[in-house]
Amino acid sequence: MNNEILIVGSLALDTVETPFGRIEDAVGGAGLYAATAASLFAPVHLVAVIGDDFPQQALDELAGRGVALEGVQCVAGGRSFRWSGRYEYDMNNAETLDTQLNVFADFNPVLPESARRCGYVFLANILPSLQLKVLEQVEQSRLTICDTMNFWIEKARDELLEVFRQVDIVTMNDAELRQLTGEPNLAKAATKVLTMGPQYLIIKKGEYGASLVLAEGHFALPCYPLPTVVDPTGAGDSFAGGLIGFLAWVGETSEQQLRQALAIGTATASACVEDFSINGLRKLTADELYRRYVALHEMVRFEEISRQAILST
Amino acid sequence: MNNEILIVGSLALDTVETPFGRIEDAVGGAGLYAATAASLFAPVHLVAVIGDDFPQQALDELAGRGVALEGVQCVAGGRSFRWSGRYEYDMNNAETLDTQLNVFADFNPVLPESARRCGYVFLANILPSLQLKVLEQVEQSRLTICDTMNFWIEKARDELLEVFRQVDIVTMNDAELRQLTGEPNLAKAATKVLTMGPQYLIIKKGEYGASLVLAEGHFALPCYPLPTVVDPTGAGDSFAGGLIGFLAWVGETSEQQLRQALAIGTATASACVEDFSINGLRKLTADELYRRYVALHEMVRFEEISRQAILST
Repeated sequence: MNNEILIVGSLALDTVETPFGRIEDAVGGAGLYAATAASLFAPVHLVAVIGDDFPQQALDELAGRGVALEGVQCVAGGRSFRWSGRYEYDMNNAETLDTQLNVFADFNPVLPESARRCGYVFLANILPSLQLKVLEQVEQSRLTICDTMNFWIEKARDELLEVFRQVDIVTMNDAELRQLTGEPNLAKAATKVLTMGPQYLIIKKGEYGASLVLAEGHFALPCYPLPTVVDPTGAGDSFAGGLIGFLAWVGETSEQQLRQALAIGTATASACVEDFSINGLRKLTADELYRRYVALHEMVRFEEISRQAILST
Repeated sequence: MNNEILIVGSLALDTVETPFGRIEDAVGGAGLYAATAASLFAPVHLVAVIGDDFPQQALDELAGRGVALEGVQCVAGGRSFRWSGRYEYDMNNAETLDTQLNVFADFNPVLPESARRCGYVFLANILPSLQLKVLEQVEQSRLTICDTMNFWIEKARDELLEVFRQVDIVTMNDAELRQLTGEPNLAKAATKVLTMGPQYLIIKKGEYGASLVLAEGHFALPCYPLPTVVDPTGAGDSFAGGLIGFLAWVGETSEQQLRQALAIGTATASACVEDFSINGLRKLTADELYRRYVALHEMVRFEEISRQAILST
């Protein structure tokens, strides 16, 4: 076990339309966003599958960022996973126009020897049964995080719940949380998820921020306010990548570090959404990330009031 | 000018249905929620209109909390303002089933002599032209806050913008903010509102919390997490009432106090939504309010990271 990070998730070619423009067949996918983000902090091993249409340049760039690509299978003659979506006005929700699984349909994640010893594991949103296969191959880990989506909650609930029993942190958005638990109240729904196995739940709320729920309480962070949100695609995976990257880097996962990691993830995601594809993450320097971390810290700060003062009213 | 609070807003009889039950003709209205909340901190003067169907007991209770009712006009033989609404599943949005303005249709707010010297003024959501009439009657004030709604943004935009020029703080929810400015990005929309007159903008985001925007930056707070949300009616007005109450009590409105006031407002609103009508606010003690303030403070706290540490990655 080491302080390196294993990320399993899609590499995709995305066609995305937002009020700010359109990109066609740009590199994307949960694995790409998370790996690019996490590589700001620690060595990353990426496990994914691509067709031979996936641009070599993107792979070279990942390698240049310290991402080991031994676990990226390339299917000769195959086409990469493709997603096409559109964001309207307030950009809170993506409308999926087309999904082509292509080589992703037969994805069988095989971990290279070097990846099995990663202490930090992020299972991006893929079939829960594949997430389980990955966990089987991991030798021992310090921290495992999984993401999921509405489709698996409905179609592969049992396998998903098995994943939940085996990981330390589950990330979901609020709609998924309500769907999974059948509980409209988020606080109650979160408590239910904690009884399903994971020690921590991270609720992703898009432009409303994120929160961390543990048995002892809550931590909540607003979104980093940005005057320009160009494309929200990949925000959640950039968030998770920054978060696990930071945790691997500090080598501790107590509540204090998790709170900091949520802020780092939030700052990382804020860079992602400022441009299409991974262009925003590409431009993100440690200096700028630090600046946003400090700004977030300042943004949520407020002073205590003395008990005596308020009780005298 | 003194440290007392003037609140102008509706007193209503509400029929509300939520997944947790139904109440019929229960006391409500923005003025009632805000005055009940603000009275936790300082003397309040309420200006409103009712029919003779409004329960005397509710008025007695307000008086018992230090709310001066000289400005509450009672129209003999008139019927009070009535609102009927329903909340579904996640309780983020009310569906209005019926609105009967009744005596509220001819409301002409006249400030009793004693109310004109209030240093703190909250103009709850009423016709912008009436908000202007109130401001004309206020002798001098330290802090004025106005609320509004989508209907006035559409139907009385010019008067509303005149109100904005005359107040210190505007409160809106995110949909209203987007509607008013025609700007989908909240950070940009907020900046636009600050050019319209007010020094501060408070964005209310329901279960996602609230934020304070000023020229120099943002402050943001999540919602207080509650396992039981019974009825969100009045949450925004309880928030505003707690906020202005706290500011009147401390007698200062610099950014630090405003940040604290947002937390106090958030804690106050959390008590409101735990029960129907004003039952939640009624039960709220200074002790419990303080406990929630401290819990919020703890909930958003995270440690700084040294610049050197993060830049060494």
